[in-house]
Amino acid sequence: MSTLVFGHKSPDTDSTGSPIIWAWYLNEIKGVVAKPMLLGEPNTEALFVLEHWDLEKPEILTELAADTQVVIVDTNNPAELPDNINDADITGIIDHHRLVSGLETRSPIEINIQPLACTATIMYKMIGDDWAQAPRGVKGAALSCILSDTLEFRSPTTTQEDRAVAEALAQDLDVDISEYAAAMFAAKSDVSAFSEEELLRMDSKEFDLAGTGLRVSVLETTSPAPLLARKDALMTAMPGVAEADGAAQVLLFIVDILKEEATLLVPNDMVKHIAEQSFGADVSGDTVVLPGVMSRKKQIIPNLKM
Amino acid sequence: MSTLVFGHKSPDTDSTGSPIIWAWYLNEIKGVVAKPMLLGEPNTEALFVLEHWDLEKPEILTELAADTQVVIVDTNNPAELPDNINDADITGIIDHHRLVSGLETRSPIEINIQPLACTATIMYKMIGDDWAQAPRGVKGAALSCILSDTLEFRSPTTTQEDRAVAEALAQDLDVDISEYAAAMFAAKSDVSAFSEEELLRMDSKEFDLAGTGLRVSVLETTSPAPLLARKDALMTAMPGVAEADGAAQVLLFIVDILKEEATLLVPNDMVKHIAEQSFGADVSGDTVVLPGVMSRKKQIIPNLKM
Repeated sequence: MSTLVFGHKSPDTDSTGSPIIWAWYLNEIKGVVAKPMLLGEPNTEALFVLEHWDLEKPEILTELAADTQVVIVDTNNPAELPDNINDADITGIIDHHRLVSGLETRSPIEINIQPLACTATIMYKMIGDDWAQAPRGVKGAALSCILSDTLEFRSPTTTQEDRAVAEALAQDLDVDISEYAAAMFAAKSDVSAFSEEELLRMDSKEFDLAGTGLRVSVLETTSPAPLLARKDALMTAMPGVAEADGAAQVLLFIVDILKEEATLLVPNDMVKHIAEQSFGADVSGDTVVLPGVMSRKKQIIPNLKM
Repeated sequence: MSTLVFGHKSPDTDSTGSPIIWAWYLNEIKGVVAKPMLLGEPNTEALFVLEHWDLEKPEILTELAADTQVVIVDTNNPAELPDNINDADITGIIDHHRLVSGLETRSPIEINIQPLACTATIMYKMIGDDWAQAPRGVKGAALSCILSDTLEFRSPTTTQEDRAVAEALAQDLDVDISEYAAAMFAAKSDVSAFSEEELLRMDSKEFDLAGTGLRVSVLETTSPAPLLARKDALMTAMPGVAEADGAAQVLLFIVDILKEEATLLVPNDMVKHIAEQSFGADVSGDTVVLPGVMSRKKQIIPNLKM
């Protein structure tokens, strides 16, 4: 039976591309039969990447059979994985997020977590010289993951290593980084087909703030206008999404990739208070602009207070 | 304030030597002020190693202040660490055990867990070329950790990498591996000063077997006779140790390093049943010899049944 390689639910580009990279490496270099999988429909940016590099869209995992060998990438959080993940035989974890509690392995396995912007950068280092054997699509996936997670090196999560790997891949592939990133971000910004509920859950992490459950949602875009035009409908949808997902509140940050700022929607006094306490913001209306804020991991989550 | 580097409670050679190696690396190569610490009195083998290589015995940590920066080595199990470990600021984890649930980090950090016999082998790979700058004592600590954890390459946990690193270090240090390992094992075997309770807890891991809490204790020795001479007293001490530690039962395996076998003490029908179910053993008296069994991780824990 194949080893299944997958990232987190609501797959973004890194959680779509990294499984493809690692499954290639296991199959072609390590001689381990492996298959990339998705835990849901990829976002519009990830779909663009698959099409651009002529990569087959991985199957969506609907049920994880007990004892299946799996490699988990781009997360170590059981809440972002199948409910029965600990019934699987986890044989590897490659990630760049903080360690949260919950995953268990049956025996000692290789776990590589590094404070880099992107899972693909860690894989690039692990694969080393064997990278020369990778087909164009696998290299393109890696480049895309890094440009996506770093917002083309604008995010404060970006490290020198991420940048150096992306630049090496772009040179190898003869890709103009700015042009290609602009096309990726345009694809991510095209969210017209999604309902408000889908937008609120598209890139969302649970966070417990002093006992209050929050869904911290981020929409990265190069064109915030169409999203802001839907702000009333988005705010109307928030209580239902929060309740369905067992949270007290949804915080939605619309990140303008080009202006390097976030707009937080402020549907009520609780969010107004959080915005003031967390970001020293002066909130008057139902939105507040947070200059320079681009990263949930580095700038939003660590500052949340109430 | 210094970054504290420590391994597990009841420190063996790897949990004594690895913090010394890593604190050296952080201080001298990475420019991070770091200090090796111990979570208890090291065992007799580790004390021999410290003396042999003229290494200062690390201080024993009595209280872990909140927000202290720490690097955890040779374990990722909160049960083997200070109770308030998650109040510390964990900045690194280097380990070779299965992932258990419980540790959390505040942000993404470097976590390197590999299925090798010894933490020091992983550190050797991480330190790379900078190893050339290590003083004799640090190299000696690394060699000692590997010989200890692999029982001089006899344990089935031994990998080619562990062996190659130990052989390279021994050559560099001009150490005869067999002679030196024999001296280490003789030191470990000198347990005359310890009470029965201390022996039962000296190298012990908690394990939950289908809801029954077990303390799985191992004593590795080149001279089992003095331990077996104390078997009645050891069995008499078991119920008290089990109760005090919240376990139903203590399983004590006396591992004969030279004969490559383990003797399990069988104080009652429950242990007899476990021995029969787990190892297909034919138990008649109050001990049973298990040929070839040397590793709790590879051979004992994965086979336990009842």
